Amino acid sequence: MTRFECDYGEGAAPAVLDLLARTNAEQTPGYGEDAYCAVAADRVRALCAAPQAAVHFFVGATQANLTVIDALLRPWQGVLCAETGHINVHETGAVEATGHKCLPLPAADGKLAAEQVAAAVAAHRASASHEHEAMPAMVYVSQPTECGTLYTKSELADLSAVCRQNGLLLFVDGARLAYALAYGQNDLSLPDLAALCDAFYLGGTKCGALFGEALVLPDPDLCPDFRYALKQHGGMLAKGRLLGLQFLALLGGAGAGPIEQTPYYTMAARANVLADRIAAAFAAKGCAPLYSGCCANQRFFTLPAAWYETLSRDFAMTVMGRGPGTVAVRLCTSWATREDAVDALCAAAAAL
Amino acid sequence: MTRFECDYGEGAAPAVLDLLARTNAEQTPGYGEDAYCAVAADRVRALCAAPQAAVHFFVGATQANLTVIDALLRPWQGVLCAETGHINVHETGAVEATGHKCLPLPAADGKLAAEQVAAAVAAHRASASHEHEAMPAMVYVSQPTECGTLYTKSELADLSAVCRQNGLLLFVDGARLAYALAYGQNDLSLPDLAALCDAFYLGGTKCGALFGEALVLPDPDLCPDFRYALKQHGGMLAKGRLLGLQFLALLGGAGAGPIEQTPYYTMAARANVLADRIAAAFAAKGCAPLYSGCCANQRFFTLPAAWYETLSRDFAMTVMGRGPGTVAVRLCTSWATREDAVDALCAAAAAL
Amino acid sequence: MTRFECDYGEGAAPAVLDLLARTNAEQTPGYGEDAYCAVAADRVRALCAAPQAAVHFFVGATQANLTVIDALLRPWQGVLCAETGHINVHETGAVEATGHKCLPLPAADGKLAAEQVAAAVAAHRASASHEHEAMPAMVYVSQPTECGTLYTKSELADLSAVCRQNGLLLFVDGARLAYALAYGQNDLSLPDLAALCDAFYLGGTKCGALFGEALVLPDPDLCPDFRYALKQHGGMLAKGRLLGLQFLALLGGAGAGPIEQTPYYTMAARANVLADRIAAAFAAKGCAPLYSGCCANQRFFTLPAAWYETLSRDFAMTVMGRGPGTVAVRLCTSWATREDAVDALCAAAAAL
Amino acid sequence: MTRFECDYGEGAAPAVLDLLARTNAEQTPGYGEDAYCAVAADRVRALCAAPQAAVHFFVGATQANLTVIDALLRPWQGVLCAETGHINVHETGAVEATGHKCLPLPAADGKLAAEQVAAAVAAHRASASHEHEAMPAMVYVSQPTECGTLYTKSELADLSAVCRQNGLLLFVDGARLAYALAYGQNDLSLPDLAALCDAFYLGGTKCGALFGEALVLPDPDLCPDFRYALKQHGGMLAKGRLLGLQFLALLGGAGAGPIEQTPYYTMAARANVLADRIAAAFAAKGCAPLYSGCCANQRFFTLPAAWYETLSRDFAMTVMGRGPGTVAVRLCTSWATREDAVDALCAAAAAL
Repeated sequence: MTRFECDYGEGAAPAVLDLLARTNAEQTPGYGEDAYCAVAADRVRALCAAPQAAVHFFVGATQANLTVIDALLRPWQGVLCAETGHINVHETGAVEATGHKCLPLPAADGKLAAEQVAAAVAAHRASASHEHEAMPAMVYVSQPTECGTLYTKSELADLSAVCRQNGLLLFVDGARLAYALAYGQNDLSLPDLAALCDAFYLGGTKCGALFGEALVLPDPDLCPDFRYALKQHGGMLAKGRLLGLQFLALLGGAGAGPIEQTPYYTMAARANVLADRIAAAFAAKGCAPLYSGCCANQRFFTLPAAWYETLSRDFAMTVMGRGPGTVAVRLCTSWATREDAVDALCAAAAAL
Repeated sequence: MTRFECDYGEGAAPAVLDLLARTNAEQTPGYGEDAYCAVAADRVRALCAAPQAAVHFFVGATQANLTVIDALLRPWQGVLCAETGHINVHETGAVEATGHKCLPLPAADGKLAAEQVAAAVAAHRASASHEHEAMPAMVYVSQPTECGTLYTKSELADLSAVCRQNGLLLFVDGARLAYALAYGQNDLSLPDLAALCDAFYLGGTKCGALFGEALVLPDPDLCPDFRYALKQHGGMLAKGRLLGLQFLALLGGAGAGPIEQTPYYTMAARANVLADRIAAAFAAKGCAPLYSGCCANQRFFTLPAAWYETLSRDFAMTVMGRGPGTVAVRLCTSWATREDAVDALCAAAAAL
Repeated sequence: MTRFECDYGEGAAPAVLDLLARTNAEQTPGYGEDAYCAVAADRVRALCAAPQAAVHFFVGATQANLTVIDALLRPWQGVLCAETGHINVHETGAVEATGHKCLPLPAADGKLAAEQVAAAVAAHRASASHEHEAMPAMVYVSQPTECGTLYTKSELADLSAVCRQNGLLLFVDGARLAYALAYGQNDLSLPDLAALCDAFYLGGTKCGALFGEALVLPDPDLCPDFRYALKQHGGMLAKGRLLGLQFLALLGGAGAGPIEQTPYYTMAARANVLADRIAAAFAAKGCAPLYSGCCANQRFFTLPAAWYETLSRDFAMTVMGRGPGTVAVRLCTSWATREDAVDALCAAAAAL
Repeated sequence: MTRFECDYGEGAAPAVLDLLARTNAEQTPGYGEDAYCAVAADRVRALCAAPQAAVHFFVGATQANLTVIDALLRPWQGVLCAETGHINVHETGAVEATGHKCLPLPAADGKLAAEQVAAAVAAHRASASHEHEAMPAMVYVSQPTECGTLYTKSELADLSAVCRQNGLLLFVDGARLAYALAYGQNDLSLPDLAALCDAFYLGGTKCGALFGEALVLPDPDLCPDFRYALKQHGGMLAKGRLLGLQFLALLGGAGAGPIEQTPYYTMAARANVLADRIAAAFAAKGCAPLYSGCCANQRFFTLPAAWYETLSRDFAMTVMGRGPGTVAVRLCTSWATREDAVDALCAAAAAL
């Protein structure tokens, strides 16, 4: 069985393991107060052109999402998100468990439009019973989205403008951000994110690390006590340096080159190319993509059920849904995907 | 200005105030541990033909909703409800503030169908990532619904059957239950509710009391520690007898007759008749009802905007929404609605 | 049985019931947006010499406590309080249920000293692991305390100064505030409270109302969205005017005289005198007071168990604890206490 | 600077890193549903002689504590713990953030006695206002405690008996359990823990892993939906196998020998010996131990402040508090402590 169902099926990029091994015997303070975390945070700030930003490291994305939302919102405030947003459908109500309501909006292909946000906020404020509704106070989007689509710089700038006009925070879940950054048509850079968002993270878990997400709060005054929130939700890793070290391995340290020269980016770029090959193979068979504009390292197709049965004997895919005689699937590549595995999958598809 | 925008615009039925005044100087234990609450609870049990039921009194409906849901569910469990359900749209995220996710389903005219619940539960259980989703564990419906429609006995029995087959709890918000019970076509009785539901309440606030909701848990073993939950959420009234007394005034005490002979019922029946007159007046003008099957004491119409402007000079209505040239409104009657007020409204409508 | 165990054993002061009855048929908007609430809030502001203050009405004190604390603190912030504080011991963990930790400090006779607060804050800030501790961010005290003692103006000013120097909020639970205000030796006025505190309330439930607490937030910008919090916690009464009306009955309306001329004050003053009589009767028998400085309408004594057995046949008291051969009790008076009941109790005590 | 201030200052035991590296390229399902986790869970069950137990892996101890408590208790239930208990003082109110109150009891040397628990439960149940108090429903203890002391088998059996007689759950925080198991005088085994507790964990983070805690629920029916709770609190690691692998490296796999032959045990035994040497060095200087019965890998002493100043130039220690002219410190050893570092510390102490 070769696995294409997700991008967290293997361990870590060798450079990550190497650095962990090389520094293993060193003694450092705990809880992220070590020099490796400090240098990694500096490196993140430099890549984001956000020299004042607060940077916090998390073990995982759900932990990051729930902590950010709980730390930045007041109890009666809710989060506007795509109905397909990860926080709305795949985190077991983790945001609600912190007391905040997800406020889902319809989202073609997983993306929210600035107009939707503006309309939702306007409707809330115009309502005679607005105090009886959760107050929209944040917009959560994912880049890439859960449907594999990307926000353009212009689209995110529009969302950001609506948020700032209305006093909402903009939070970008970047669990797969490397793949977005490294995709050819992408025009949304780390400095753009830092300029447009109030919070976003560079995902590590799905982009070459054993685990880890690097949260950026461009305004350091937004939540000076953020580390209390991190600890309170069980998100402060005792051996915090493991997070700093991994991001150093992926992003390079002080003085390293631009993002395009980092393993974080180059590994993702390679995975995107492999995903393009897979997409071409399915397109050649006439399989319709499930979403429009899907790109980067996740691809979604609707297959005849018989084809799915055949392929799934050798290749693990995520089933997104089933129709009459059809199965909708997701296939992912990652930094760890082997070319021969893609060759085999494409050949199997061609032979259907 | 005459108010038809809600059913809680006045104080209480005179019998309620009288009983409060008559017993005012008596000394009783606090927190609902007095004899009046005990007798009122017995009376509720008798009317529900549920001699073992636990009965708890609340000041208000949001408090009842959030406490019931928090007391009966485990943290990761969510509540299936109509997308128009009160808990989903008009309680400022009160359920989420207790950590539980509302799981809204599309609902024509405010009603959930048993098939929808069955499908949602089946989809959750079939999902490979079900542990990543809030677990559907309760169904919340309102009788009457927020759209003024009623569940038939057969419809609620179907919902109940699906819930019991799947281990979900069924919770009926009866904030306006008097109006449902007293409506001509209604075939769903208090004993039916006690037989079919795991929790429901007889609303007092909108049905003749100053305030108060009488929660019935037909199975007394469902939550033996419920009073801890009541206190923890600030819902345990110090002078708890005020709740028992009001329900005694509305429902009668030990040995009183059937529900049809109580002020609770007769006042609601009268309000329903007044609502029928209002509905007829608007129908005569060709105003389309907003929902199909709307009845009891709430009525919803779409009016030409100019008509709304004219009427609203003298009559308060709730604006549900605005379309191009139209305004959708709700009009309510209650135990307190005066006949001459209805005459005036109908005349004004006729004159449009 | 004559009840002295609490101050919420009867209904309401007749003036309260009268006003409710007199206004019963009027139609008003719901949820506290009526004219009565507006006038009552103005009256509270005037009495507090706090013309800008936000005033919010609650049904009960636990609801007020949990809502204020949840609305004003961030998730990782805790509340310094006396170990005997109501929120710490008698609210079923209501504050913790909103996510906030009570941080109890030892309190002789129920009172916190400014030095204790200063020391606790200093210790937290000096701790190398302060991010691993709940952050002290509010001080909660009760006036009178749960032990029947009073803060002097000087003591509260000291607490306020420490809070302001350190950025903590000061919150005074005034569930029995009338009895404090009306006690002879008291020197802490409503304007003092408004000047020294960030939040406090004038209790109604235990001071002559059926129910109700009037919260004052002297700085209206402290929480502009407070009404969302009120609704989210189920604390927004549908017929909100009932709260405004009751405080008008207790405090008088626009243009009424100083607090000393209000029923709120005069009823409490009378209750305090009756409590003094009870205290004298027990003191004459040599019963030791449980706390030093106890005054106002609650009194605490340690009795021989045999005396307790005798008295408790006719008089309900709250048992605070039992020692070898002794019982510690609380006795309360209220606006409703009858003089002949006090006569009887004192005679019974004398006859022990 | 040589660090003795904690037992999580280095990376992982080499065997852990080796196994991670060796399996790095393998593809497995995510979220702990892989074969390594399954085998590691089997191994934990075998070592605990608890073949039916549910085993769940966490990244860290605070995450484990808050998830277990939230998953096993109802909202109004609280946790009895030592006032020095980690959940009470060092987790930023993480337990309260899930809504549950810590109910601290005085604890000499960090240990709770069965009698204290029995008395607390009895007092709650005898209270007339028990519904106004958080209900004690769980006992949380740490083995070793936060003061470095150990429960004997007899002591834990007594606690367990009180819990079972009263329907409370017993939860043992084993963040440093290896050091307890491997300490000479210890008589409390893994099978004992499984027989006496409702939940406990084998700490990994402080016992040789990069991170990880292995939670054991001896009764698999106690919380069948526990994985929902794990996900909801952000505790479900995407690459869950990292946890299974690490525990395999520490505990051995199927068919491995008794606990005494595992790296988990032997590394801890060695650390305990080094801690004994440190203790002897300080005792020889007349430094009083801070707690009585302290053993295993944490030692606490009160030093003259001048000695602390001298030592702390070269050796990092945790400051527990300061007295007039004295400093109380904690020193820890771990699987990673080097003998030459201990030699140097002992020599420095001798030279004071």
